[in-house]
Amino acid sequence: MKQISELRRDLVSGDWVVVAAGRAKRPHFWRAAKRKKIRQPKEKCPFENLEKSGHKKPIFVFDFKGNRQPSGLSAKGGNGWFLQLIPNKYPAFSAKGVCMFEKKEGPFVKMDGVGFHEVFVYRDHGRYFNDFSVSELALVLRAFQDRYNDLKDDDCVEYISVFHNHGSEAGASVSHPHSQLIGVPVIPPDVSRSIIGSKKYFDEHQKCVHCTMLEWERMHKERIIFENELFIAFCPYVSRTAFEVRIFPKIHQPRFEMITEEDRVSAAEALKAVLEKLNKKLSDPPYNFFIHTAPCKTVGAGHYHWHIEILPKTAIWAGFELGTGIEICSVRPEDAAKHLRKA
Amino acid sequence: MKQISELRRDLVSGDWVVVAAGRAKRPHFWRAAKRKKIRQPKEKCPFENLEKSGHKKPIFVFDFKGNRQPSGLSAKGGNGWFLQLIPNKYPAFSAKGVCMFEKKEGPFVKMDGVGFHEVFVYRDHGRYFNDFSVSELALVLRAFQDRYNDLKDDDCVEYISVFHNHGSEAGASVSHPHSQLIGVPVIPPDVSRSIIGSKKYFDEHQKCVHCTMLEWERMHKERIIFENELFIAFCPYVSRTAFEVRIFPKIHQPRFEMITEEDRVSAAEALKAVLEKLNKKLSDPPYNFFIHTAPCKTVGAGHYHWHIEILPKTAIWAGFELGTGIEICSVRPEDAAKHLRKA
Repeated sequence: MKQISELRRDLVSGDWVVVAAGRAKRPHFWRAAKRKKIRQPKEKCPFENLEKSGHKKPIFVFDFKGNRQPSGLSAKGGNGWFLQLIPNKYPAFSAKGVCMFEKKEGPFVKMDGVGFHEVFVYRDHGRYFNDFSVSELALVLRAFQDRYNDLKDDDCVEYISVFHNHGSEAGASVSHPHSQLIGVPVIPPDVSRSIIGSKKYFDEHQKCVHCTMLEWERMHKERIIFENELFIAFCPYVSRTAFEVRIFPKIHQPRFEMITEEDRVSAAEALKAVLEKLNKKLSDPPYNFFIHTAPCKTVGAGHYHWHIEILPKTAIWAGFELGTGIEICSVRPEDAAKHLRKA
Repeated sequence: MKQISELRRDLVSGDWVVVAAGRAKRPHFWRAAKRKKIRQPKEKCPFENLEKSGHKKPIFVFDFKGNRQPSGLSAKGGNGWFLQLIPNKYPAFSAKGVCMFEKKEGPFVKMDGVGFHEVFVYRDHGRYFNDFSVSELALVLRAFQDRYNDLKDDDCVEYISVFHNHGSEAGASVSHPHSQLIGVPVIPPDVSRSIIGSKKYFDEHQKCVHCTMLEWERMHKERIIFENELFIAFCPYVSRTAFEVRIFPKIHQPRFEMITEEDRVSAAEALKAVLEKLNKKLSDPPYNFFIHTAPCKTVGAGHYHWHIEILPKTAIWAGFELGTGIEICSVRPEDAAKHLRKA
């Protein structure tokens, strides 16, 4: 029997997505997920020898034991280093310019692109996030958090986005494993809508909208794929893409940057489990990973609930998505969760 | 000298985009635009013989002279046909189900995916939009408009999106030239924001926000790439992607579906000029094309101004874009327009 598709409205943003299970039967559906990622040879990799490829000195270096070493170290690194944080060579935002002032240009409004654009480079060329151990992933989260806290009070930073692109189809232009951090002088549109939406829900229900969702998911279990003491991973009811997974702290926590060592290890364990399941089920898919947290300087963002989103690249945004903002999810989140639970 | 990037705020939606000219220097920047599109062999093409590939009978057929023939014709077509409109075999929306009623599912809200999903199939396997003559493109616009008018009063249709994906990188899963129409039972989020934004501007300034932009562009000319008596094409000040082009009727017109024969020919001339310029400058890039018009049933949408958007696929949305909603445009619209004017 042909399933009819469903429109589902996001509880936070109010936006609609289409869950169109029938479209997964199209002959080319799995191509994007299955296609092999382009891997650059080690000899030509710009992240293999950062100094040689013209990068500035690292902002900080972490060794495998979790010791943070300050800047000034040679970008060559030694055997002991695990990750280096470096300024992006082609930054979308940079520290030069004037922030906080909007300028008029005829009827238009613009602002200098002041901010930060940095890269977390991991040591081993062919060792990806899903090869990392739980303690390595916990270290990654600590490096994210450390840098977040370094920058969050900067006058030109309103929001900090930490993200990780895996595979060229997911927009990774360098195949060597790396994550990125971008600090921007405005609150981004999607973040702004999430904060407004969760505030509205809180005012109406005296409850965090994400806690409400977590409660429902934990009661019904059909979309949950992993759970430990502190964290939970599930395919959201309103999934933007097939096999989307979100990881939430189970206890209400507005801000990622406030997490403890215990949280990091528990979140890393959830992340490891999710990446392994995606890897098994979708054969090492390209994906995007990012952290959503309350904007740096928003007072009274206590209604927000930070989380991690992992979006496997199972579709290409085309004319319909670009023209309407409605995303089409080709696998029911309930089915995706069932597959991932088993994997 | 290194250019600093700029944040530009969309006058209609209020959303920010980054114009980051420096990033175009990245080694892989042009890959997406230059990579050859996958073209399926004619023998295996599902649109070469619609009947054989299991498609239903066409909804209507246009011949090259612009005569519309009603349904009931064989899907085989004859030599005389130019386009056939068929139901999508893998629809994201279909006519079955109950529209207009939201259903609750715990804390969530959903709706049956009732609507229309149809495909305009053009006759010749390897002849693309940019090979079409002005009169053929005018005929395409007439077919879009005809079908729009057939469906706009349907109880289950709140918005109709007409779009065209060129190249597999732009999401075209079949390489045979075709366009699509999706009629949805809700006003999509991006459309809703555009309508609210242009209404707000109108209330504050007693003027259409798009007319304000057109006036500025026509006065300054730096972003204009083509103009005829009735239409104008330019790279918008707030471009979402490098080499984005929008085509507007010069006189205020809220709705695409109201255009005249004269408008269609003039719009087709602009479209032809733009596609040729993109083709020359970017070597047959993959792109998405869509029409933005006022929602079917919105009363008092006279402040809106319909237009066509053409977005060459010059970038992949990655973690930053997905996590923030801020798009990064790697070529200044002023530079893109200069290149396209010359092409």
